[in-house]
Amino acid sequence: MNISAFPALIARPNSLCDAVPFFEKRGVKKLFLLSDPVMAQSPHLVPLREALADASIGLIEFSDFAGEPKMAKMDEIIALTRAEACDGVMGIGGGSALDMAKIVSITLVADRPADDYWMMAHPLPPQSLPSVMVPTTAGTGSESCSTNIIADRNGHKGWVWGPETKPDLIIHDPVLSTSLPASLTGWCGMDAFIHAFEASTNRYAHASARGYGHQALRLIVKALPQAIADGDDLDARQMMLLGSAWAGAAIDQVGTAVAHHISHSMATLAPIHHGHATAIGFEVTLGWIIDGLAGDEAAIEKFQSIAETLGLADYRDLPQFVSDFMDSCQIDRSLPVSFAQFDKDKLIEQLLADHTQSMRVATAREVTEDAIKDIVTRLANLPVQAA
Amino acid sequence: MNISAFPALIARPNSLCDAVPFFEKRGVKKLFLLSDPVMAQSPHLVPLREALADASIGLIEFSDFAGEPKMAKMDEIIALTRAEACDGVMGIGGGSALDMAKIVSITLVADRPADDYWMMAHPLPPQSLPSVMVPTTAGTGSESCSTNIIADRNGHKGWVWGPETKPDLIIHDPVLSTSLPASLTGWCGMDAFIHAFEASTNRYAHASARGYGHQALRLIVKALPQAIADGDDLDARQMMLLGSAWAGAAIDQVGTAVAHHISHSMATLAPIHHGHATAIGFEVTLGWIIDGLAGDEAAIEKFQSIAETLGLADYRDLPQFVSDFMDSCQIDRSLPVSFAQFDKDKLIEQLLADHTQSMRVATAREVTEDAIKDIVTRLANLPVQAA
Repeated sequence: MNISAFPALIARPNSLCDAVPFFEKRGVKKLFLLSDPVMAQSPHLVPLREALADASIGLIEFSDFAGEPKMAKMDEIIALTRAEACDGVMGIGGGSALDMAKIVSITLVADRPADDYWMMAHPLPPQSLPSVMVPTTAGTGSESCSTNIIADRNGHKGWVWGPETKPDLIIHDPVLSTSLPASLTGWCGMDAFIHAFEASTNRYAHASARGYGHQALRLIVKALPQAIADGDDLDARQMMLLGSAWAGAAIDQVGTAVAHHISHSMATLAPIHHGHATAIGFEVTLGWIIDGLAGDEAAIEKFQSIAETLGLADYRDLPQFVSDFMDSCQIDRSLPVSFAQFDKDKLIEQLLADHTQSMRVATAREVTEDAIKDIVTRLANLPVQAA
Repeated sequence: MNISAFPALIARPNSLCDAVPFFEKRGVKKLFLLSDPVMAQSPHLVPLREALADASIGLIEFSDFAGEPKMAKMDEIIALTRAEACDGVMGIGGGSALDMAKIVSITLVADRPADDYWMMAHPLPPQSLPSVMVPTTAGTGSESCSTNIIADRNGHKGWVWGPETKPDLIIHDPVLSTSLPASLTGWCGMDAFIHAFEASTNRYAHASARGYGHQALRLIVKALPQAIADGDDLDARQMMLLGSAWAGAAIDQVGTAVAHHISHSMATLAPIHHGHATAIGFEVTLGWIIDGLAGDEAAIEKFQSIAETLGLADYRDLPQFVSDFMDSCQIDRSLPVSFAQFDKDKLIEQLLADHTQSMRVATAREVTEDAIKDIVTRLANLPVQAA
């Protein structure tokens, strides 16, 4: 087992300003703060700016981005942070904001553009700048993960990978996630649930990934329905953030499986929220995986221990449990209207494309070409939302 | 919740030499290696020395110590490492070796003696030298902990504390622990079991400590009897090392409780293995704690979830489970012959002494003075080993 580090974490309401003593102690003089555009306007950032000023730490802010990270945007950010000679990095937002901030924490100690680190083209510098990451959604687990999703100059989704990009400190301030609407809370939460589930059951699942995964599942099944029912429930938000970070630690060690394979492939067809697509892909495949485990005692043991973690006597009850759980989280199983013309052949092509195969082969049951065709047919038969 | 970091970890047989590329990457030129005297003679260290030489990393070795860390020994080590200008630290051994090596990793970047950091007299330097810790026993969890036990110049047991002393990398090479005799495997393993149990149930137990604690318990109850029955079972040794490190992470966040309070106090009376004393203190008090929980729903929930983690329906079955588990681990409940003259009054005095109160007050049930007297009577009634 190679078990990557889990960063130090401060987890409590109104803890955002706890970043300041950390940066002071590390001697940071000019901080680069990358935040989601909405978060940049939030009143919650005002005390942080004041505390940084009181500590005489300069502040360069950036929030001029939309959607997932792209190289051209990284060029802009890298030029800015180098020109300003920033010596510390803070990210506040969803997975995209954190991924970009994490990449900056290593490009600032190197002379290279981000391209040079894409898909591990070059080794990362051995140490990053002092960094603090603050997720405002509970889903990607980017803050505890070595993977940073970014598209190359041709628009191909890939990543910059390395434990060096993990933050020195995570802050989980549940107040920052109370404004997330129920549907997004549900989709992000399902993403975290499935991270934990797939990392605990895929072919590479080992004791450490399963440890983090099981604990994440235990928190998420209790907290997610509550966070959806009452978005202002700070305890539920706090537990979802911890569950998401643990789920991130689990996939950081052994990756995901076919639900993420489907989700990444669907996203190339038309816009769909990552958590939504993952939840759909998970529900469509879980029963099929479990039906195929007979005789594979090692795989059954992984599913059985998940079942027991979730209070079930038999792993064959997991598909019904998951569907009931998704019901309790009000997860919409219909496809976005952008999928009204469902291109089955293109999805099959994507699911067979070289760069997606690592998730396919990690799956507990062999995902044959016939299985892929069957999965695609079932996805295409899902209802489509009214325009 | 303040959740301290869990270091990166390599966990596989014959992984000791994986330290070398880590030190190379971090630019270390002269490594200080502190190892247990027995380990220094072990053939397992030969390939490590060769790999360091091949990587042109200088090596200063030290293993001239016995028993728990003392300030005079630290003076000697600090003088040596400063004179040699070591720029990286590796510890191989039990808790004492690792604690001393962890302290060196911060004194080498500061001008102060170790005394200045004892009981947090001064803040630690913000960063330590690159360090790798390799536990050869599965018990203390020192490698994942901020606490480093050391006696001051008057012989009072205390500690140097700080997350800065944690290693950058842990190596769990189960081959190194196969030579540990069954009795020591059992005592160390019970120490880890009780770390996990107390951190999951004490007054400060929170979601993160309980997450690490529960996962540790799940591994330890499976692996410890097996590691005792067959010391060469590398899987069992590997899982015990991981369970011990997770248990260390759990106490790192919320500390221990009355079993450790008893153990530390007993150790001042006469020589007794820490794990042995802790196991005895745990068994003597667990039923008493559980009998006193009625009405304290928050405390009951913590014990009930431990029970379910261990496969029990009711938390009131925990004392019997623990006694059965200790039987299966062949834990001797008699006192060492050094306790033939049991000084009850001195033990009571120790249990009421100021510096031990943090463990006492952390306990789920209030440990009154009357309770202490009753506990001491029960300890004094234990059989004493034949001389």
